[in-house]
Amino acid sequence: MLTTSHGGRNNVMTMCWYTMMEFEPPLVGCVVSNRNYTFSILKTSRECVIAIPTLGMADQVVRAGNISGRKTDKFKKLGLATMPATEVKAPLIAGCYVNLECRVIDRTMVNKYNFFILEVVRAWINPSTKNPKTLHHRSYGFFMVSGKTIRFHSKKK
Amino acid sequence: MLTTSHGGRNNVMTMCWYTMMEFEPPLVGCVVSNRNYTFSILKTSRECVIAIPTLGMADQVVRAGNISGRKTDKFKKLGLATMPATEVKAPLIAGCYVNLECRVIDRTMVNKYNFFILEVVRAWINPSTKNPKTLHHRSYGFFMVSGKTIRFHSKKK
Repeated sequence: MLTTSHGGRNNVMTMCWYTMMEFEPPLVGCVVSNRNYTFSILKTSRECVIAIPTLGMADQVVRAGNISGRKTDKFKKLGLATMPATEVKAPLIAGCYVNLECRVIDRTMVNKYNFFILEVVRAWINPSTKNPKTLHHRSYGFFMVSGKTIRFHSKKK
Repeated sequence: MLTTSHGGRNNVMTMCWYTMMEFEPPLVGCVVSNRNYTFSILKTSRECVIAIPTLGMADQVVRAGNISGRKTDKFKKLGLATMPATEVKAPLIAGCYVNLECRVIDRTMVNKYNFFILEVVRAWINPSTKNPKTLHHRSYGFFMVSGKTIRFHSKKK
């Protein structure tokens, strides 16, 4: 989920197209459609929080992606508690097990591809959430739920 | 996995940083490090195949990511059978359940971020592979194995 803030008003949307781009500094690239209310806020404020929900929040995740924040306070409507971030005005989502405070560092690809390049400037984890099941969007209402984590060793022959 | 072809010689690498960028035309953005042999080939040939392996290919996936194709025919070394693509010179990987023939359509972000924007020009699926378990890189040798697919309906209140 992606939170933003503009003029003292917070918003949240559900996002599914993103990728790591660099380890140091930690960069994330993401697509935010220009049809979304978040688009112009992100483009202007150049700040956001990426909050990673768990399976238990699935209902809120889906609903946050299906209503617009243009006229609705989605946090209130969906019962999503927030906490203040330290580096950006966009809020953390209390129930998420990871929150990443981000600054937009490159808008070159925004007009053509709706693609924002973010630098993660502070990362929060919820230490009480152990090995959470995560949601991975497949299409429309379909999600893959994360399975087990396994380790492979490269075998030389 | 990402295959390329240059001067009649095919190569394959393991890739984990990529994202959908558009539905129509279908665009995929991906990071290929300039430390990889594939980087200069992809930049020059502007063609590749994204091949999506299943859990059963994990050993080949890990090994393909840990050896360089600079002096090694990785397909031969790893026992990866190929099939010719139709739109690009890079080969399909026979054992993968999805193969996406791609053309590089934008290199604007290649020098700064190693980020290539690809258009998928032909997509192949293996119809005999039903609901395959897929591999999702977490860090170093750790992978998340895909779990079940679930469907959510947005509930209005």
